[in-house]
Parts: sequence; structure tokens; C-alpha cells
Amino acid sequence: MTKERIHQIIFEADTPKGKAFDIGLLIAILLSVLVVMLESVDSINQEYETLLRALEWGFTILFTIEYFLRIYSINKSTKYIFSTMGIIDLLAILPTYLIFIIPSLHTLTVIRVVRIIRIFRVFKLKRYIRGAYTMQIALRKSIPKITVFLLSVLLLIIILGAIMYIIEGEWGGNPDFQDIPNSIYWSIVTLTTVGYGNVVPVTVTGKIIASIIMLLGYGIIAVPTGIITAGIVKTNKNISTQACINCSKEGHDDDAECCKYCGSQIHN
Amino acid sequence: MTKERIHQIIFEADTPKGKAFDIGLLIAILLSVLVVMLESVDSINQEYETLLRALEWGFTILFTIEYFLRIYSINKSTKYIFSTMGIIDLLAILPTYLIFIIPSLHTLTVIRVVRIIRIFRVFKLKRYIRGAYTMQIALRKSIPKITVFLLSVLLLIIILGAIMYIIEGEWGGNPDFQDIPNSIYWSIVTLTTVGYGNVVPVTVTGKIIASIIMLLGYGIIAVPTGIITAGIVKTNKNISTQACINCSKEGHDDDAECCKYCGSQIHN
Amino acid sequence: MTKERIHQIIFEADTPKGKAFDIGLLIAILLSVLVVMLESVDSINQEYETLLRALEWGFTILFTIEYFLRIYSINKSTKYIFSTMGIIDLLAILPTYLIFIIPSLHTLTVIRVVRIIRIFRVFKLKRYIRGAYTMQIALRKSIPKITVFLLSVLLLIIILGAIMYIIEGEWGGNPDFQDIPNSIYWSIVTLTTVGYGNVVPVTVTGKIIASIIMLLGYGIIAVPTGIITAGIVKTNKNISTQACINCSKEGHDDDAECCKYCGSQIHN
Amino acid sequence: MTKERIHQIIFEADTPKGKAFDIGLLIAILLSVLVVMLESVDSINQEYETLLRALEWGFTILFTIEYFLRIYSINKSTKYIFSTMGIIDLLAILPTYLIFIIPSLHTLTVIRVVRIIRIFRVFKLKRYIRGAYTMQIALRKSIPKITVFLLSVLLLIIILGAIMYIIEGEWGGNPDFQDIPNSIYWSIVTLTTVGYGNVVPVTVTGKIIASIIMLLGYGIIAVPTGIITAGIVKTNKNISTQACINCSKEGHDDDAECCKYCGSQIHN
Repeated sequence: MTKERIHQIIFEADTPKGKAFDIGLLIAILLSVLVVMLESVDSINQEYETLLRALEWGFTILFTIEYFLRIYSINKSTKYIFSTMGIIDLLAILPTYLIFIIPSLHTLTVIRVVRIIRIFRVFKLKRYIRGAYTMQIALRKSIPKITVFLLSVLLLIIILGAIMYIIEGEWGGNPDFQDIPNSIYWSIVTLTTVGYGNVVPVTVTGKIIASIIMLLGYGIIAVPTGIITAGIVKTNKNISTQACINCSKEGHDDDAECCKYCGSQIHN
Repeated sequence: MTKERIHQIIFEADTPKGKAFDIGLLIAILLSVLVVMLESVDSINQEYETLLRALEWGFTILFTIEYFLRIYSINKSTKYIFSTMGIIDLLAILPTYLIFIIPSLHTLTVIRVVRIIRIFRVFKLKRYIRGAYTMQIALRKSIPKITVFLLSVLLLIIILGAIMYIIEGEWGGNPDFQDIPNSIYWSIVTLTTVGYGNVVPVTVTGKIIASIIMLLGYGIIAVPTGIITAGIVKTNKNISTQACINCSKEGHDDDAECCKYCGSQIHN
Repeated sequence: MTKERIHQIIFEADTPKGKAFDIGLLIAILLSVLVVMLESVDSINQEYETLLRALEWGFTILFTIEYFLRIYSINKSTKYIFSTMGIIDLLAILPTYLIFIIPSLHTLTVIRVVRIIRIFRVFKLKRYIRGAYTMQIALRKSIPKITVFLLSVLLLIIILGAIMYIIEGEWGGNPDFQDIPNSIYWSIVTLTTVGYGNVVPVTVTGKIIASIIMLLGYGIIAVPTGIITAGIVKTNKNISTQACINCSKEGHDDDAECCKYCGSQIHN
Repeated sequence: MTKERIHQIIFEADTPKGKAFDIGLLIAILLSVLVVMLESVDSINQEYETLLRALEWGFTILFTIEYFLRIYSINKSTKYIFSTMGIIDLLAILPTYLIFIIPSLHTLTVIRVVRIIRIFRVFKLKRYIRGAYTMQIALRKSIPKITVFLLSVLLLIIILGAIMYIIEGEWGGNPDFQDIPNSIYWSIVTLTTVGYGNVVPVTVTGKIIASIIMLLGYGIIAVPTGIITAGIVKTNKNISTQACINCSKEGHDDDAECCKYCGSQIHN
């Protein structure tokens, strides 16, 4: 098989063989992650140890072959090896070999769940990428606002945690609020509306402040939602990616016939 | 009664009899589901066994008559039988007969709650269908973006679950994080901000990572909300693209018959 | 004092006396609700019984005078008495008298918290009413879509509750899922991401379905948010409240000069 | 060093020295807050007491020098001292000195966490300020609507709390609902979907009302989200209302200098 054919099958999904490869890869990834999960369950691991070990080696060898075929068939192989996807592809196979050589590293085994990220390999279909792309633009535009919001939330959490430490821990004698880090942890649990309930305020003042934190957490969720929604709404409005030939400025509307900065015609 | 009259009463809601039938059906559905629920409560079932059994048979016979009238009065009866609604109509009556024949199948009894889906039969009113329809368009458009989002969340949950398994389970010795599936389950409980609180991290590192998961879950809810909101906003915009012939101004509503600036007629 | 002057002070907030009355009323309402709350706390009630009782009678007599002044000063007093606000005004004073006459009705005492609704009386300021009005339009427009959504959620909850009843209760033997109503209650607790944690699934299948319910609940919150946001965005677009003189149709844009249905001029 | 140079370094971030100062300040703030947190943890405080005390004094002296340099280098020093940021700068150093003089005030130590607010000092970068500014406008516009919403939620919580007090506490005999304030606290915990789970309804009626509260809380979160999103979307829309003089078409962006349809200049 020529290098080009291998590349076509592994990296693209246009041909029937390419599609079949993608579906096979998807199933292999999902099964191999399932094996990693089941291995961690003691009762299952003891009963089916041989089977799980065999499957693990099967998938590892399969992914190793695939990894080297990718390096072989791609033109800029060095670039691929050090790309995010290349490193993930390597992390998906390396732990099994490492543990085989040095058995004491058995905790590394869990690193293999990064295999699940490889699922994104299979989603090459245009409409998914387009959807992801629009969202990425919208999210990237929202970063400055989101940063300001996150910072404010972090500050709020730290200050509210410190206040609860004094009221509940120092004054109320509640052992669950005995230090600031634990009070901040409780603050996060409450503000995000997770509410485990293993740590709760017991004093009246503590309950009042807790109520304020809950209502705050319930209300300020509206802010990031508003930011991201507005970002997506704006991105949806089909801004043309075309630059003006004359002044090379961008950001024209889709229906624009002339550049809004210099007035020269835009050929769509 | 002619086939047409029966069809009109059962399938449409325009005539007084059709409306009366719909309201009767609505009440019958709700009561029959209530009976299924109460039957499952041991104390009530023991005391009112005869009454509940009688009601159950009453509703089953009623729905059976209705089912056969539907098949009789509709033109393409085969198409109806194998449609989603036809199957639900059948599932609503079948379990009672099956359990009568083979009493050991009594678990099947619960299938009868699908009767509740039949409520949608009654909501034939135009404005509800219109509302549902607009939403369906908006949701369908959002599918590629939502898929990418859901996939990212699933990956996040699996990887965070695996990390917590190592930190809390392997290193921290927390029995609640003893295997990856349970850690992933905890991840889901925390990320979705449900937070049962029966399983909580005990180590400092575990609490820090849990805090990150909570803040993530609190924040990324903004993404699907943004996607769907933007989809609905876009779908809602019923603004016509037509310009007025007389004054050539644009921006008329879809239902406009006259130009809102000069008053001359718009030919849609 | 004339009837007109009393009306001006009680019902309007334009004059200094009217404003002073409103602020006084606001404080009286808040204090009287505080008294109702404190009365329910046994330890406080026993210690300050005389004071609380005296305050309660003070506020009741105050509100009674106000109530009769409202009836006296308003033109259509019958209409006021049977309006929502009139009934709330009556419910705010009646329980105290009733319990005085028939002491066994002491549970009625709690009805007095409806006094808090009277706070809305004080918010006559234009910008608040305008804000509330825009929101009301937006929410009213969203009703058909919200109804469809709520119905779908209710169906989901009932069916998921029934499934959990079989899996956890019947097959898993979990006593917390022993009947359908309790399973549905748990479904609601989980889907709304409240997650008390006193009832949790124990079987593997139960945990998997619980995970699906959580992710569903986490995701579908986006739908009502999207509906209401789109409604508010649309309403924000300044739709004029003016009806056409010729055809009396409404819903014209703020910048419309002619009726979009019949073409006759609109005098803004 | 001249007064101007000091001002430039401390208050601005345009010069390399100004940037270096900002980064140094950021690290000092974060470390000093970490010290405050660790001091509150008994086990750490006992082992590293000398180190923590030394670090605390180091940071306090550093911030004191910075504080006086700010006062010295700024023109309107009185205005700075009584500004929000000036007071926070003072609160960040005062507690350490006060506790040194009067050791019994050791609870004051926690006030030092307000240092974290000083982080905002460092974020002078334009795009962050711009992001925060747009959000501020959007949020300020939403205040009347948000006020009406918050008020409605507070009323709902109080009334639902009172109802639960009667049903669960009075009639159901549940000790967790023994007074109205505690019932209201539970109402807040449930409505905000925090759901600690240490207090739960036990009666059937109580569970039904709890279900309604949960569904309400799950649903009405859509309202503030809608309000804020609509506010941000509106603020984002920098579309000029100006029509082109040449072709009289509208819908140009705020920064447009030429008509996007015919290319002739727009005089803003």
C-alpha cells in the first residue's frame, strides 16, 4: 500500500475504507476505555484478570501500529509527534509498556483513559467542526468578560469563606469551619449550588449568610450565561470573513457590497 | 355513527363533541396513571385492592375500545398501528391483559405509566403545536453544537473521574472512590451540581480538584444555554426581507400587509 | 381631610406626604412579618410573649385603619374589596381578629405572612413597573412554549421515576424506591439538580440511569432559559402599545408611521 | 526618584518598571492571602508559626511602604485615602498592627483577606476594563427588572416557607420545620437547588410542595438569565441608527465610515 493510500484511510473519512477505519477506531477506543475502567473494579479484575489483560494488550498493540502508521504516512511527522493529538496518541499506549517494564508504576495505568480524547479524531464531519468553530469564536470573544467574572466569583468565595470561618468556626464553634481553606471549600460547594450537605452552618448568623451565598450563586449564574449567549448570538450573525482589497480591514457584514471603512467594492 | 363522524370526534377537536372527548380522555389518562402509581404503594394497594383493580380494568377496557375505534375510523390503519403514537396506545393497554394471562409478569404493570405520554394527544391546539414547532427547529439547528458540547463534557467527566480515583481512592484511601466507574459517577453528581453528599472527597488535593469540577460545572452550563438561546432567538426572527415598492424601506414584519412607513400595500 | 387628599396620600407617591406614607408602610409591613416569624420560634415567643402580642395588635389595628381608609377614599370601593390586592389587604388583618374570637384557630396565624405581598404596594415607581411590565409581556408570550416544555419534563419525571422504581425498588431491593410516588419524588430532586442525598441509587443500573437523569436535568435547563431570553430580547425591541385608529390592530413597531395591516397613519 | 516617576511605576502599567511592579504586587498579594489562610489551619500554624509570622510582617511592611508611596505620589491624596480602593489598601495592613498593640483582637486577623480585592489593582489592561465596562452597563440597565424578580423570589420563599412550617412542622411534627425562620432557610436551600439534604420533608403533602418548590427553582432561574442576557445582547449591538445620505439605506455599524451598500461617506 502506498503512503498516500494509508494517509487517506487513517486521516480522512471521504472514502468507504476511511469511514470503516473511523468506525473501527471509535469502537476500539470505547472498548479500551471500558477495559481500563473495569480493571479498576477489584471484583471484576479478580474474576476476569486474564481476559482484561489480553484485551488491554490487544488494544495497545493495535494503537501502537496505528501510531506508527500515522507517523509513517504523514508528511511532517515531527510536527505530528509534538502536536497535542500526537502526544495524546502516545500517552494512550505508553503506560502499558512502562508498567510491563517497571511493574511498580501500576498507578500510571489510569493515564490510559486519555484514550477517550482520541474520540475527537473520528469526528471529522464538517458540520460538527463548523459547530465547534462558531462556538470557539464566541467563547474566545467572551474571554475578557469571563475572566473578570471568574475573578469576581473567586474573590467573593474567599471573602465569604473568611466571614463564615469567623462566624461559624470562631464564634459558633462549628468544627467543620475550623480553618479558612475548609470554609472556602464550603463556600464553593454552596455558591455553585452543589450543596453536599455534609458541612452546614449551625448558627443563626451563619444560616443568614449561607442564604445570601445561595441566592448569590443562584443569581450570578445568569452572568456567564448572558456573556456566552450574547457572544454566540453575535457570532451567529454571519460576519463575512472577507477582507477589503483596498484597506484590508475585516469584519464586514455578509450583505455588505462596499467596505465600511474606505468605501471600495467588496467582491463576494 | 359513520366512520367519518367517529374520526372527527376522536382525532379532531373542532366540534363540541370532539372537545368533550378530549377532556374526557385527559381525565381518564390522568386518573389511570394515578391508579398505577397508587397500586405500587403497598399500604394503599392492600386496603383498596378491589377498587384499584376495578378502576384499572375499567380504564383498560375504555382505552381498548378507543384503540380499536381509532384503527377502525382512520384510513391508513396500518400506518397508525406502527406509528410512535400507535405503539404507545397499545403499550397503554397490553400489560393489563398480559398480566391477566401470565400473572408472573406483574413487573410489566409499570409499563402502563407510558399512558401519560398519551396526554400529548389532547394538546392539538394550534398555539401549542406552533410553540413546540418553533422550539423543535431551534433545537434541531443546535444539534451539532450540542453534540460537540456533550462529548466534551463526557470526556471531562471521565478524565476527572479517573484523576479523582487516583488521588482519593489510590492515594487517599477513600473507599468511595475505590474504582473508576464510581469516581466517574461522583464526577457526574458534582459537575451537574446535583451534589448528593453521600460521597465526598477527604484529602486536600481531592477537595481542590472537586472545587475545580464544581466551578467548571457551574460555569459550563452557560454553553448549552447560550447555544439553545441563540438558536431560538434566530428562529424567532420572523422579519420579512421584502422592501416596500413605494418607499423601498425594509424591516417589515412577516405578517405586515402594508408598509409601516408609507402605508402602501406589500405583496408577499 | 378631604377624601381626595387621603386618596392622594395612600394611593399615590408623588407628594412628600405620599412618599412618607409609603416608607412608613414599608417599614410597618417588614416589621409585622418579622413579628409573625419570631412568634413561631418557641424560645423567643416564651420570653417576649407580651411584647410580640402587643406589636402584633399594634400592626393589625394600623393595617385595619389603613384598610378602611382605602375603602373610604377610593371611588369604586366594591371593585377594590374584591380585587387581588384588596383580598390580600383583608387577609393581612383578619387572622388576628379571628384567633381572638376563636383561639383554636391559632394555625391561621401564619396566613398573616401574606402581608409581605403588600410590599408591592410601595413599588409604584415608574421604572420598576415598566420593568415588570416588559417582563410580563415576554413571559406571557413564552407561555405556550413553556407549557410544552413543562409537560415534557413532567412526563420525563414520571417515566424515569417508574423505571427507577423497577430497577432500584423491585430488582435492587432499595427501600427508598419502594413505590412509584417516592421514585418520582427522587426523580424531581435529581432532575432539578437539588440532590438532597438522603435517597440515592445503589445498583449499577440505577446509578447509570441516575447519571442520565442528572445530565438531562443539567442540559434541559437550557431550554426554558432559551425560551424566556428570546422572549425578552424580542420584547425589548420596543414594540409600541398604540392601536391603529382605523383597524384597531396592535403590535406596531415604535418607528412605524403607518399601520402595517391597513396602511392608515398612526399618530404617535 | 521624582514624585512623577513613582506615580508612573505604581499607578500605571505602560513602562517595563510599571509592569514589573504590577507582577510583583500580584505575587505579594496572592502569597499574603495564602499566609492568612494557612495561619488559620491549627496544625500548620503550630509547626510553622515563626515562618508564617515573619512572612506576615514582611508583607505588612511591604504593603505599608506601598500605601505611603501611593499617598505621597498621588496628587489628590485625601481623595485616594477615602476612596474604596484606599480603604481596602488600609484594611490590608491595619489588622496586623492592631493585633500587635492589642493581642486580644486576634479575630481581626481575618480582615486581612480583603487583600485579595487588591488584585483588581493589577488588572489595568484595557480589554479587561472594556469587558467589565460593557457588562456593568448591561447589568445596570437590568437593575429594575432584577429588583422586581428578586422581590418576587423573596416573597415566594417567605410564603412557601410559612406553608411548609404549617404542613411539616405543625401538622407533620417534623422537628426541622419547627419555626418559620428555619422553614424559610430550607425554602432557600431548596429553591436555589443547593439541596443540602440535612433537612427534608417527611409528609406526603410536604414532599408534593417541596417538588413544586424544586421545579419552580429550576424554572425561574431562566428569568434573571433572560434579563441579563437580553441586557448584554442589547448593549453589544453597536449598530448606528444613521442612514446613508446617498442611498438612504440603514443598519451601518457604529464604527463604519462609509456606507456598506454604495460606498459613500457617512458623517457620524
